[in-house]
Amino acid sequence: MFQSIHFNAKPRATTNASKPEVLERLRKIVGAENVLIEPEKVEPYGADAVKEKFPPEAVVFPETTAQMCEILKLANEYLFPVTARGGGVGYTGGAVPVDGGIVIGTDRMNKIIEINPDDLYAICQPGITTFALQQAVEKYGLLFPPDPASYKDSFIGGNIAENAGGMRTPKYGVTKHSVLGLEVVTATGEIIRTGGRTVKNVVGFDLTGLMCGSEGLLGIITEATLKLLPMPEATSTVRASFKTMEEACKVLTKFTPEGLLPMAMEVIDKNCVGAIEQNFAFGLSKDANAILIVAVDGARAQVETDSRLIEKILKENGGFDILRSKTKEEEDKLWDVRRAISPSLMKYGSLKINEDVVVPRSRVPELIARVEEIGREHDTFVANFGHAGDGNIHVNFLCDRENADSIARARQCVKETFALSVALGGSISGEHGIGYVKAAYLDMAIDAPTLEIMKGIKRVFDPNGILNPGKMFI
Amino acid sequence: MFQSIHFNAKPRATTNASKPEVLERLRKIVGAENVLIEPEKVEPYGADAVKEKFPPEAVVFPETTAQMCEILKLANEYLFPVTARGGGVGYTGGAVPVDGGIVIGTDRMNKIIEINPDDLYAICQPGITTFALQQAVEKYGLLFPPDPASYKDSFIGGNIAENAGGMRTPKYGVTKHSVLGLEVVTATGEIIRTGGRTVKNVVGFDLTGLMCGSEGLLGIITEATLKLLPMPEATSTVRASFKTMEEACKVLTKFTPEGLLPMAMEVIDKNCVGAIEQNFAFGLSKDANAILIVAVDGARAQVETDSRLIEKILKENGGFDILRSKTKEEEDKLWDVRRAISPSLMKYGSLKINEDVVVPRSRVPELIARVEEIGREHDTFVANFGHAGDGNIHVNFLCDRENADSIARARQCVKETFALSVALGGSISGEHGIGYVKAAYLDMAIDAPTLEIMKGIKRVFDPNGILNPGKMFI
Repeated sequence: MFQSIHFNAKPRATTNASKPEVLERLRKIVGAENVLIEPEKVEPYGADAVKEKFPPEAVVFPETTAQMCEILKLANEYLFPVTARGGGVGYTGGAVPVDGGIVIGTDRMNKIIEINPDDLYAICQPGITTFALQQAVEKYGLLFPPDPASYKDSFIGGNIAENAGGMRTPKYGVTKHSVLGLEVVTATGEIIRTGGRTVKNVVGFDLTGLMCGSEGLLGIITEATLKLLPMPEATSTVRASFKTMEEACKVLTKFTPEGLLPMAMEVIDKNCVGAIEQNFAFGLSKDANAILIVAVDGARAQVETDSRLIEKILKENGGFDILRSKTKEEEDKLWDVRRAISPSLMKYGSLKINEDVVVPRSRVPELIARVEEIGREHDTFVANFGHAGDGNIHVNFLCDRENADSIARARQCVKETFALSVALGGSISGEHGIGYVKAAYLDMAIDAPTLEIMKGIKRVFDPNGILNPGKMFI
Repeated sequence: MFQSIHFNAKPRATTNASKPEVLERLRKIVGAENVLIEPEKVEPYGADAVKEKFPPEAVVFPETTAQMCEILKLANEYLFPVTARGGGVGYTGGAVPVDGGIVIGTDRMNKIIEINPDDLYAICQPGITTFALQQAVEKYGLLFPPDPASYKDSFIGGNIAENAGGMRTPKYGVTKHSVLGLEVVTATGEIIRTGGRTVKNVVGFDLTGLMCGSEGLLGIITEATLKLLPMPEATSTVRASFKTMEEACKVLTKFTPEGLLPMAMEVIDKNCVGAIEQNFAFGLSKDANAILIVAVDGARAQVETDSRLIEKILKENGGFDILRSKTKEEEDKLWDVRRAISPSLMKYGSLKINEDVVVPRSRVPELIARVEEIGREHDTFVANFGHAGDGNIHVNFLCDRENADSIARARQCVKETFALSVALGGSISGEHGIGYVKAAYLDMAIDAPTLEIMKGIKRVFDPNGILNPGKMFI
């Protein structure tokens, strides 16, 4: 299945990683049971959410940093590609071994080393899911804010490597804003330690920031020290419909003068609303050409005050069918329409190409209007939703996975959408990254001298180019 | 004056920068009136708050990014050192031309290019003071949170290059957390553009993070896009005395379970209290061996609730002489003791060596107790105060600037304090940086492989080593 969208998929490569002596040494490093080479066993490690298949020659599961160093030293000796993999649920192929070689699965490095409520940090290995980490710190009354949609499946190592986003960005920032320090094994098998356990630390260059979002090209994260916050007492959500996308987005600018900083501000466009209604019949109004969902958190009394004020602002600025949650259950229910989008859209095409462009948030209405034009021009159904509060919009082009022309038209739409996003003062990815999927478009967003610096940094960390080749730069 | 503390000061160097043809070309690039070479005119640009003198051969004031590029290309052609300078008020010599060459003053690049309240960002040139920027955005009801103590004098370019801290870190982070994107001229005179105008942006390596805190070694910032927040409606401050430092710091851990995240949590030790009382007679209790100052901000009603709760927590945990501000005037008054520290300490020695080590905040009492032992051991008066909420403590060793032995003892105290901070899980600088002052100690905090990576990155940006030589690495 999905065969027809394998634009880039390759048969299993053969590099030095397949040499018997290499496999033997890998088995010696991590134990024979932690090296997979059978085709049916390695296949699942050859794809991510893009669902294109690049089967690795072997999958290796180290348990310690020392083993990670040995594997990378071996890879440098024999010069085969190494791709680190967390949960394997990325949207741009970051964890996929496009040039063969080995995949390093961090699944066994899944321990929480320390949760320190007094000093507000946690230390963990890369192979724990963000959800498991959040649950663990919640027991101490603490919050780890990053919340990518995939948080139940994605590993914290992958979230850091991709600098994952999510819905809480307007208030809490992205993953990099919650990383204090890292232990990293570089491509040459050296251990480096970046940052520390404190928010303030200005000793040497900020390699922690550099590692966040480096997509596995510079090193493999073996330990992370993460910043925690007090868990807010309460949350509340307000949902409203609007007659136009302009109205819905304009409302966001009304919060600032009131001192309001909602943790999430999500928007759903009219095509999404139509699709949801066809499938779930929530009873959304036919006049609802945009839906806005705004969530606040904090102390209970303040959350009550803030959510009432938001309700008032939405009402005074064109919002209708306004619902404000008073309980956790009501709040969950308000988010149902958001969760209904993806399944609903699948009726419009067997293949959904989900991009995640970003623009300054006041340009969201223009972005969406012009993306609709692009869709019409190329006879492609488009539906948009996403993080209006930070301008990161998921643009979905629906096409027929069995129809090459339909796919080609959608891909043309993607390209024009990227150019549009850059022209509007934004960029081609807000939270999914570049991987191999967007590599061809990188120079639309990054100019040549800046790209040269990035390539130079890559060479410093990885002189032989063994780490995650085929990604980001092409 | 101050001659006796010039451990490192040098007479004016002569490099290729002094060649008549170079000076002529500099004058051509920026205009003759914007090139200073007279000894008395360049002297002020040869020192910062460290007050050691390294007079540059010339001071050059470009007005545009294009001029900055030309200057750096010229420096590469003739291979002379270039040191960028903002307000020149740093504590580690970051803006001081220790190897001669030219100083580039960013004073003329002081424009605010855009304040965008809808998209919550500002774009400005590097030569504006942080205070001026804050005042400008305040008119739009917006907050630029970074607040280094020097904010009235330091330039935003310098704050970014040093990744400046301040008091609001517990809630708002440090300078790097408020930088969205940069325009930078690299050492070779190329313009690179990092990040953008949005919080979410995962396109290529995060060079914005790397530039923050790079201390002028990688490039010169010519434009910054900064993240803004809604201005909180109100603030309130609570001050309390404690019988021990342990008690004062232990209280900080009581806020988290209540969901409280104060914006500032400052502490003052008993030696500071004694010095303040001797000088100002505020009427602080003789039993006050530590003073804690806690500030909250937010919506007015919540600030009232939070500050009352903080007052209660302080009272229940050993606090006495507790004062809670109800008005802006009362709040200002509560901070008087903090402002009184530095002038009061000068009675204990004509030279105050102010370090800014950082430890996980629960280790602050141990840090201070052991620093006192170090002081006793080396017969040096020590007084500590600082940012207890983020573990960044200003350790002040007082000595006699005319007495070499007294200075040598204080310097030994500094060295042992750095080792102690690292041993306690912290580092040698929380907000002042390394510059040349701490360069000899860098390897106490950064291991060799990590240092090698940093040096490699330096070579990528600055192959000829012209930018700010003598800093960070030695």
